Amino acid sequence: MKLKVKVMNYETGNKKDVIVNYNDSLELGQKAGERIRIKNIKSKSIEDKYWVAILEIDHSNSIVQPGEIGISLDILKEKKDIKEGVMLSIKPADPPESFMFIQKKIKANKLTGEEINKIINDAVSGALSRIELAAFITAVAINGMDNDEMTALTLAEARSGEIFNFGTDVFDKHSTGGVPGNKVSLIIVPIVAAAGLTIPKSSTRAITSPSGTADSMEVLAPVAFEYEKLKEIVSKENACIIWGGALNTAPADNILIEIERPLHMDPIGLMIPSILTKKLSLGVKKLVLDIPCGPGTKFPTANNGKEFAYIFKEIAKNVGIEAECALTLAHQPIGHAIGPALEAREALTLLMDYSVGPNSLIEKSTDLAGILLEMGGKAQHGMGQTLAKEILRSGKAYEKMVKIIEAQGGNHDIQPHEIEIGPYEKEFHAIKAGHITEVNNKIINLIAKAAGCPHSKKSGVEIFKKQGARIKEGDLIFKIYSDSQTKLKRAEKIYNSTGGPIILGGMMIERI
Amino acid sequence: MKLKVKVMNYETGNKKDVIVNYNDSLELGQKAGERIRIKNIKSKSIEDKYWVAILEIDHSNSIVQPGEIGISLDILKEKKDIKEGVMLSIKPADPPESFMFIQKKIKANKLTGEEINKIINDAVSGALSRIELAAFITAVAINGMDNDEMTALTLAEARSGEIFNFGTDVFDKHSTGGVPGNKVSLIIVPIVAAAGLTIPKSSTRAITSPSGTADSMEVLAPVAFEYEKLKEIVSKENACIIWGGALNTAPADNILIEIERPLHMDPIGLMIPSILTKKLSLGVKKLVLDIPCGPGTKFPTANNGKEFAYIFKEIAKNVGIEAECALTLAHQPIGHAIGPALEAREALTLLMDYSVGPNSLIEKSTDLAGILLEMGGKAQHGMGQTLAKEILRSGKAYEKMVKIIEAQGGNHDIQPHEIEIGPYEKEFHAIKAGHITEVNNKIINLIAKAAGCPHSKKSGVEIFKKQGARIKEGDLIFKIYSDSQTKLKRAEKIYNSTGGPIILGGMMIERI
Repeated sequence: MKLKVKVMNYETGNKKDVIVNYNDSLELGQKAGERIRIKNIKSKSIEDKYWVAILEIDHSNSIVQPGEIGISLDILKEKKDIKEGVMLSIKPADPPESFMFIQKKIKANKLTGEEINKIINDAVSGALSRIELAAFITAVAINGMDNDEMTALTLAEARSGEIFNFGTDVFDKHSTGGVPGNKVSLIIVPIVAAAGLTIPKSSTRAITSPSGTADSMEVLAPVAFEYEKLKEIVSKENACIIWGGALNTAPADNILIEIERPLHMDPIGLMIPSILTKKLSLGVKKLVLDIPCGPGTKFPTANNGKEFAYIFKEIAKNVGIEAECALTLAHQPIGHAIGPALEAREALTLLMDYSVGPNSLIEKSTDLAGILLEMGGKAQHGMGQTLAKEILRSGKAYEKMVKIIEAQGGNHDIQPHEIEIGPYEKEFHAIKAGHITEVNNKIINLIAKAAGCPHSKKSGVEIFKKQGARIKEGDLIFKIYSDSQTKLKRAEKIYNSTGGPIILGGMMIERI
Repeated sequence: MKLKVKVMNYETGNKKDVIVNYNDSLELGQKAGERIRIKNIKSKSIEDKYWVAILEIDHSNSIVQPGEIGISLDILKEKKDIKEGVMLSIKPADPPESFMFIQKKIKANKLTGEEINKIINDAVSGALSRIELAAFITAVAINGMDNDEMTALTLAEARSGEIFNFGTDVFDKHSTGGVPGNKVSLIIVPIVAAAGLTIPKSSTRAITSPSGTADSMEVLAPVAFEYEKLKEIVSKENACIIWGGALNTAPADNILIEIERPLHMDPIGLMIPSILTKKLSLGVKKLVLDIPCGPGTKFPTANNGKEFAYIFKEIAKNVGIEAECALTLAHQPIGHAIGPALEAREALTLLMDYSVGPNSLIEKSTDLAGILLEMGGKAQHGMGQTLAKEILRSGKAYEKMVKIIEAQGGNHDIQPHEIEIGPYEKEFHAIKAGHITEVNNKIINLIAKAAGCPHSKKSGVEIFKKQGARIKEGDLIFKIYSDSQTKLKRAEKIYNSTGGPIILGGMMIERI
């Protein structure tokens, strides 16, 4: 069948759909969601023989007339010989072979490395449709992946994009997430780098949380770099704190995440490869993994976290990464600040003056940094945290952070009080005395996001009293910051309707 | 957030996506595939408070600028107050509650009737996205549905559309499919109707096969009717043979099928509700289900078919339908003709003259019709087929078919030789003598579809010798018909590359 190109003023990222008129779809014998092979009739190029697209059907004659095929801007960017009016030859096509491997996983069979490679290649090329990938993700969530499969998936995802090289002994830290205010990377990276280890820390922006490491660091310095500039930064400072999204690493992982996210799925069979793939792409050899355990995290109990840790270490070893895992407490925020600017300010304050704390941030950061120092031979076994605390207390970590900020193009002289927050604020005070039995992370996140996090860097919350604290009537316990009055009101509303995140002896502490 | 409507010249049926600029999506805090609540700022109507849509994101500034929201024609058709330039208020929205029930099925838990209702309602309203429904279908394929769940799903799907009423005792016949040339409905309906039973047969067009009952019947008479006209036909002739797609029955079922089809999934947990829903919509009370068993069908062995039959009967009973199931042979085509016009011609020939056969078509049609005659009290137990053969042999079934054709607006006087086929033909003759050990249905389907079936009604194949037959060198064994030379050549090519569908003593019978 021959159809004439009609250019569609439409582009949405991953979509490789084309659209034909309902009458032509009958003649073609393919239904919506099925595949067609497309070839430019006049194309002379041998490599560019044909390409496969997913069919959409216009039932209304309002987009494409019989004889036309709607081609989106996504496709036009890739196919230089396609333009308005070009004649294409269209034939029905079968799903790619990799679709059979997805069906194999649906039937709970183990996939070979070669089969996993083909799924990943077809996910990246667009040969597999979004609903086929949704079926794959669901099948993995239900039927799981064993260690061989996870190993193969990690390698396949890493190979789907660029793999960088920052030397032979590259260190890194990662967290499985779920605890608010977890700005520990801003402390760990300068400690580890000050000790002389190489740690090119790439991190994500917030996905479901009020702030990711990249969001907080961006308050202090730019975080989006291409490889050449990054290499310069790391060769100078043996460290960086950047946003991984600016590098073309592991596109396969991003494609899977784009479907996992709206499905609210993050099965271990995909989570472990996703973490390790990003590490492989940056040439990481030694990794400490922070596994927060508790309600609201991926691991409700420490036992869940432990089980995960053993599998993780095994897969990491299989792909050439030495990993140590730390199960950490996640019952309340780390430190007091939640939100990009507030977290950057809290981290910078601690780097400049050890004595101001907060203690939970010191302990967790030096615990994790200590493990890396031991793995790197900078401290004896069991002495890593002591060394980490020394480096932090001595100001060497701060000096390193200043240099990293400078290398990334930030203001090396920035002072905590110069970091902009708010300007709209609302304080909450205790209406009676008592003892805090619980801090609710979920409510903190809701309030911080309502206030504008993570998009508005200046928004966030501060929690002044935490679990176990005794409070007096009138004590300042909580504060919301926002860049807009409307958002502040919305955040206040959540505080009031939930009773706030701070639970006193099992009862609400304040109600307005 | 407030955005201005930009109308997108785009429509694809089920999609309820809207598109916003990447910058606005950051401000909104929602990712592609997530949901937003939309409200017309000026809308006064209370019912039309807000609606939920799935977000797409323009990363390129080529479709929508910051401050704009792209709204497709699908949505415009439903929302009369939305037009170019209208200001909308946009807020993040959570997935509907029914998404939690999909997650429950992913975790292999049983769903309540209420939960299934909510999934079905949200599938129809568009509140559940295509990838969420793909996850649901995959979860059902892996974790199954029990009888209570299938019963609830059947009722929920039926309630999603119109339910018709053709009287108190309505009969029907259905097939789970998979055997080529299965034109038995064109024989069964007139037999059963001639005996005085009511049988408003609605059927599908071909989905993956060369011809569906609706495609074949359409060669003899129109098959697309609205309810009022249909009621007139059935009240006159107590029968019809129509295309179910023209009626607004069970839209929920169609939505699930639109996703099952590209996923090549048809799990029993959805298949049984799908069949029974369509029967409930037409008020069917007594049903015979033809279950072809064998390679290439949904039931590779008779035992698979039997197991299915028991579950099917149970669910049918639960929703008020008395069902009997017949396991039938599926190792080769029924009769000789495959393709809409060829099948219509073969059926009409048999209705006019019992003596010409073919025998397989007589036996299968009267077997199934006999069961319905017994269920309707027209024949003693075990005597149904004898009565069915009598009705067919006597010409009463033909008389009834002529009246049905006339009532549906076809040419009641049509003769088999007047049915147009071809005009391009290719005959295949045996190159040696022997005994046919196998007929390959899959190859027959491939050839018939390559020749143009089901869209080209005049295309198809005839198979002249079947399993068990002795053939002499030079015997005509197979013939391809097509409406185009190109398609005929394509079909011939498949015959030659596969060696054809007729296997002689385990060897190819002809190679050209």
